Amino acid sequence: MAARVEAFVRDTVVPFEGDPRRTSHGPKDELVQELRALARDAGVLTPHVLADGEHLSHRDTALVLRAAGLSPLGPLAVNVMAPDEGNMYLLGKAASAEQKGRFLAPLVSGAARSAFFMTEPASEGGAGSDPSMMQTTARRDGNHWVINGRKAFITGADGAALGIIMAKAEDGASLFLVDLPDPAVRVERVLDTIDSAMPGGHAVVAINELRVPADQMLGDPGAGFQLAQIRLAPARLTHCMRWLGACTRAHEIATDYACRRHAFGKALIDHEGVGFMLAENLIDLKQSEVMIDWCADVLDSGALGTAESSMAKVGVSEALMRVADRCVQVMGGTGVTGDTIVEQVFREVRAFRIYDGPTEVHKWSLAKKIKREWKAKQP
Amino acid sequence: MAARVEAFVRDTVVPFEGDPRRTSHGPKDELVQELRALARDAGVLTPHVLADGEHLSHRDTALVLRAAGLSPLGPLAVNVMAPDEGNMYLLGKAASAEQKGRFLAPLVSGAARSAFFMTEPASEGGAGSDPSMMQTTARRDGNHWVINGRKAFITGADGAALGIIMAKAEDGASLFLVDLPDPAVRVERVLDTIDSAMPGGHAVVAINELRVPADQMLGDPGAGFQLAQIRLAPARLTHCMRWLGACTRAHEIATDYACRRHAFGKALIDHEGVGFMLAENLIDLKQSEVMIDWCADVLDSGALGTAESSMAKVGVSEALMRVADRCVQVMGGTGVTGDTIVEQVFREVRAFRIYDGPTEVHKWSLAKKIKREWKAKQP
Amino acid sequence: MAARVEAFVRDTVVPFEGDPRRTSHGPKDELVQELRALARDAGVLTPHVLADGEHLSHRDTALVLRAAGLSPLGPLAVNVMAPDEGNMYLLGKAASAEQKGRFLAPLVSGAARSAFFMTEPASEGGAGSDPSMMQTTARRDGNHWVINGRKAFITGADGAALGIIMAKAEDGASLFLVDLPDPAVRVERVLDTIDSAMPGGHAVVAINELRVPADQMLGDPGAGFQLAQIRLAPARLTHCMRWLGACTRAHEIATDYACRRHAFGKALIDHEGVGFMLAENLIDLKQSEVMIDWCADVLDSGALGTAESSMAKVGVSEALMRVADRCVQVMGGTGVTGDTIVEQVFREVRAFRIYDGPTEVHKWSLAKKIKREWKAKQP
Amino acid sequence: MAARVEAFVRDTVVPFEGDPRRTSHGPKDELVQELRALARDAGVLTPHVLADGEHLSHRDTALVLRAAGLSPLGPLAVNVMAPDEGNMYLLGKAASAEQKGRFLAPLVSGAARSAFFMTEPASEGGAGSDPSMMQTTARRDGNHWVINGRKAFITGADGAALGIIMAKAEDGASLFLVDLPDPAVRVERVLDTIDSAMPGGHAVVAINELRVPADQMLGDPGAGFQLAQIRLAPARLTHCMRWLGACTRAHEIATDYACRRHAFGKALIDHEGVGFMLAENLIDLKQSEVMIDWCADVLDSGALGTAESSMAKVGVSEALMRVADRCVQVMGGTGVTGDTIVEQVFREVRAFRIYDGPTEVHKWSLAKKIKREWKAKQP
Repeated sequence: MAARVEAFVRDTVVPFEGDPRRTSHGPKDELVQELRALARDAGVLTPHVLADGEHLSHRDTALVLRAAGLSPLGPLAVNVMAPDEGNMYLLGKAASAEQKGRFLAPLVSGAARSAFFMTEPASEGGAGSDPSMMQTTARRDGNHWVINGRKAFITGADGAALGIIMAKAEDGASLFLVDLPDPAVRVERVLDTIDSAMPGGHAVVAINELRVPADQMLGDPGAGFQLAQIRLAPARLTHCMRWLGACTRAHEIATDYACRRHAFGKALIDHEGVGFMLAENLIDLKQSEVMIDWCADVLDSGALGTAESSMAKVGVSEALMRVADRCVQVMGGTGVTGDTIVEQVFREVRAFRIYDGPTEVHKWSLAKKIKREWKAKQP
Repeated sequence: MAARVEAFVRDTVVPFEGDPRRTSHGPKDELVQELRALARDAGVLTPHVLADGEHLSHRDTALVLRAAGLSPLGPLAVNVMAPDEGNMYLLGKAASAEQKGRFLAPLVSGAARSAFFMTEPASEGGAGSDPSMMQTTARRDGNHWVINGRKAFITGADGAALGIIMAKAEDGASLFLVDLPDPAVRVERVLDTIDSAMPGGHAVVAINELRVPADQMLGDPGAGFQLAQIRLAPARLTHCMRWLGACTRAHEIATDYACRRHAFGKALIDHEGVGFMLAENLIDLKQSEVMIDWCADVLDSGALGTAESSMAKVGVSEALMRVADRCVQVMGGTGVTGDTIVEQVFREVRAFRIYDGPTEVHKWSLAKKIKREWKAKQP
Repeated sequence: MAARVEAFVRDTVVPFEGDPRRTSHGPKDELVQELRALARDAGVLTPHVLADGEHLSHRDTALVLRAAGLSPLGPLAVNVMAPDEGNMYLLGKAASAEQKGRFLAPLVSGAARSAFFMTEPASEGGAGSDPSMMQTTARRDGNHWVINGRKAFITGADGAALGIIMAKAEDGASLFLVDLPDPAVRVERVLDTIDSAMPGGHAVVAINELRVPADQMLGDPGAGFQLAQIRLAPARLTHCMRWLGACTRAHEIATDYACRRHAFGKALIDHEGVGFMLAENLIDLKQSEVMIDWCADVLDSGALGTAESSMAKVGVSEALMRVADRCVQVMGGTGVTGDTIVEQVFREVRAFRIYDGPTEVHKWSLAKKIKREWKAKQP
Repeated sequence: MAARVEAFVRDTVVPFEGDPRRTSHGPKDELVQELRALARDAGVLTPHVLADGEHLSHRDTALVLRAAGLSPLGPLAVNVMAPDEGNMYLLGKAASAEQKGRFLAPLVSGAARSAFFMTEPASEGGAGSDPSMMQTTARRDGNHWVINGRKAFITGADGAALGIIMAKAEDGASLFLVDLPDPAVRVERVLDTIDSAMPGGHAVVAINELRVPADQMLGDPGAGFQLAQIRLAPARLTHCMRWLGACTRAHEIATDYACRRHAFGKALIDHEGVGFMLAENLIDLKQSEVMIDWCADVLDSGALGTAESSMAKVGVSEALMRVADRCVQVMGGTGVTGDTIVEQVFREVRAFRIYDGPTEVHKWSLAKKIKREWKAKQP
């Protein structure tokens, strides 16, 4: 399947990389639908979900998502992009049969997009990296929940058909499944961000007296953080997989440039200053690949993988940033233009070092873990 | 003067940072002209050129340009931006009195913009970092020169009133002063680049049978590289000055954010993981400042400063990249949005590591120099 | 077996870390023999060689050698140290049955040490990273070879019972097995080096009219480089394994220090500036481990693994240098003293970035490979 | 004077770099005295103290100390080494005329060495980077003070004729001038440390009922930290100066090696992988120099320079570590041997990142300052 996805992305998706329907707020849904129709025909749509609704193992997912990532348009074309891929994973694990039929099926078929409403505006002291600061509330009103609050950096909210909203109920943070659009969920603005791969961009959203029927709660009341945990580690890791693909492609483009372009009397790659950068890429790409595989094995063993996915996320995102930066540098002036996807990959990977937890938050939690384990060993 | 420029930028220019006339190809000329009118009123327009046409010393220029750089709109508002600032410097040194009156005066008054046509398309094997690969030609035809070729990455070409074009004549590379627009000089496209501060962006330009009167040659026939050298070191250094200002401001914004925003029970800055990044910024900013001052002193002593400006350019651009990157990281999700200029400064500085010679080209020439000096010391 | 080696090293070897028979030229042979006797009793001597003379798979070797490396004295105690471990591997692959009985057996039993005589003095233009510069010669004289030359940086030469000498014969570089000591092989001096873990240190050796019977040639005439290749990739990788163990232990020591020592009102580890360094260690150690495992799998598949072992060597040695450096830094003044092994591990790992090919030589060969593979793909 | 010091170090001191009286605990005092006699004859002994007892400006001191540092033996030869240089500075500022005659004069004449007893054993929770943890006590007993405690990492204690001891009296931490040796001040052991340039090494010292006449208190009771502050910033900066000299020399040695040694068909320096490292050295050395000069100007202006010297210390020590590391790497196997001073310089600079406050402690205090200044600006 990975080979088929790779062939599809290289042959069919790459030619769309100059399509004008790519905007700074992500590719337009019209382009998304066109690419998905092609993927459906090629038999590579939603390739990580099997016919029976089961997902590929994390290890196999790595192969497929890396292949999909070879173009910034690849993940959305084959329907393995964030946040949908993580949302499908969560619903597959936590939704009731009825919820699956109604909310999960349209995601798996590629007909609809979804958004995960967790983070809140920093300027108002809302929940960012520290989810305990959650300000959005859900109060019970008969057979409904009524949700109020503001959410920020909600990827794909603009144009999503499904929202998974986290809000504080009296039993604690809980998750709610919501059909969109809904007049009570207003996209105030789509942020201008350094990245531009995700359809719908990242939005600031006001939720005002949104009424949600009680049976649209996902899982139990107060189980919000627990459920978010299910999604957390795998979603971090699929980010790594996709961006590994993107940086692999950027490295191919930079290599090709360095082999063709001459300066100061020889091909760029024959200058050690350039050749060494490409060699360093090779090492960083391999390190990223083996870290992903290791963490996928941990998840496949049934472990929650919180610490391991933190380690993988930091190691991989920092390594890929170095790769993307070197690709830009190798290509000189061409590297900072949109003439190839290298420039976009650089911007995407920069954001990746913050999305799903900035590097520092992961280090913080790893340091806590180191201390905890040290203490446990003391007599 | 630096204090006045700083006050003007902070009070008058900064409010324009959200102006919609800023585009991905740079601020529109309408916005440029509006800002310059304000600068003229405030007495801070073209502040580095004195009434008698002389320039401030390089050391004093550093103070003024750093102040101008505190906003990405600052340099163009007070008319010290690239490439005009370097072009004014070159014309001041090399133009005849007549040429000064006709070509330099409108630049100094801020009425017009200019472009320097040197680099050529990589895809065609043209001159990039290695100017000896120049393919554009100038042939003599009576009392005119006729120029043909293609130029790439020509900053500000779109909208410029003056072009300084380098072309290979029979005596070697020469420089020509050209009124623009001219139908023989066609902007084929403005590149989509990671940076967006420079009016007119960066263009690919086709020059087809452009006729230039002989008295519009700048300096002597074949003196092109020699003249470009005059501009080279100072232009590198003014880049450093402006971006030092920009990164100083980014650091202020990140500091303010870190002091106000709380997470995990305290202000971000009270987390060492964040506070240390700001401390590292402080050191990198100071190192950049003192490197610039040192190199400015070298230039003020009358030296050409080629190696010194290479050292300053590499040291400063790499240090400022670290600063900009940390500012983004400190601000988390907010750091990758256009809600502050931090995200733009990050993109600009990324390009700066390539513009005016990628880091690697400077290291290459420094290594040559090290060997040369070693050889000279051998008995 | 790995668990038994780990227990032996932690319980039995670690107490010798302050033994005065450790010198700046490595542990004295008397100490080596004492430790090996203990290892023999514990059933962990030469643990990577099975009863039938076969070696563990590379993947399993990784576990055992990492455990051995937990103390700088561990590898020599259990007889898996460089260069003997690589020499045993080579003889196991390339020696005749008779040669095995005579030269390999005493190595496997731990009775004797060996040295690999390849590199030559830089000051005389000899072979260092570039083996084609080999100056040592072997000329045929009846049923003997007569070897002349000077070798430098010969690890363990002082005190070795077996030498494997590379010299240029008329058919090309060849390998010779030599009983030591021999008056024709004179240890001119043992170098003072930054590392101090290897018995016998690193010597400069003069070879003067050394006569070697023809049947002591290893493999065929002219097969020297080919045979050295057999040893090359595995030897690089076992270096990685041992130093991963050493840095794992250094990290344990630094963690313990950071959890116990207080400054500025709390335990060091509760300072993010320290806790983050330990978190980074965790990531770098894991990256090293998975890179080693990946490369071991490549070797176990039967591939030569030249490029893969270059990638692993660079990735691992650079990551472990960062780990060792952070451990020193976390421990402050204590970190630069010999009161713990952290200081020694730092010095050893510094040398490791040069031994078995400096980082730059590996990048050089990887860049060549990138170009070669690019070319092969062109139509 | 700097030129004379440089000539003396290069011509007279460098030949002693292989002298066997250099030990892992620093050069023996016999060697120190021999070198100082030569310096006295050459008129370069204690060159930073003028005839009237005044010191050179900090800016001029930078030139002299950098020249002295060109050999690891240089600073002790000309008597500008740590801790004596800082101790002379402190006594010059804070000692009474009588104290100067008795304690300072022998230091200035180069006849005696001194030590500063501040830091305490980490293992006992004593004062390290955090001086508030001071455990050594001074109690009044008639006309004497009686001091008890243990000190660790006391540079030059072994062999010193003067001790400046910090202890907690009832009025707070105070400083005492003590003639050494004294049976009440016992050098328990000299630590094995990674560095080896300082005579007497670094000692652990037990102070047991040491009686000090009241007039041997330096300054006022309780003024200990205040007085230590006087010494603090200048002492940090003179460390920077000396190690800049050492790394400048290491760079010269590495350059010479790279220009002479060939591999893979050309001189090492003609390999960009090597040439670029030397170019990076050039930049880092210059950045260090200008940071030192900037901070020296701050001190010469009369400011305390605490923050500025923190910035300089971190910036310079980290830059010089990179330089020393590259020099080792450029020289390959030779770089990790004692055949040149490069290996020693690498070890010394590693320790320098911890001595006088580890990098992290400086960042910590800079972050505090950033927050303080931000607060001061809020309305």
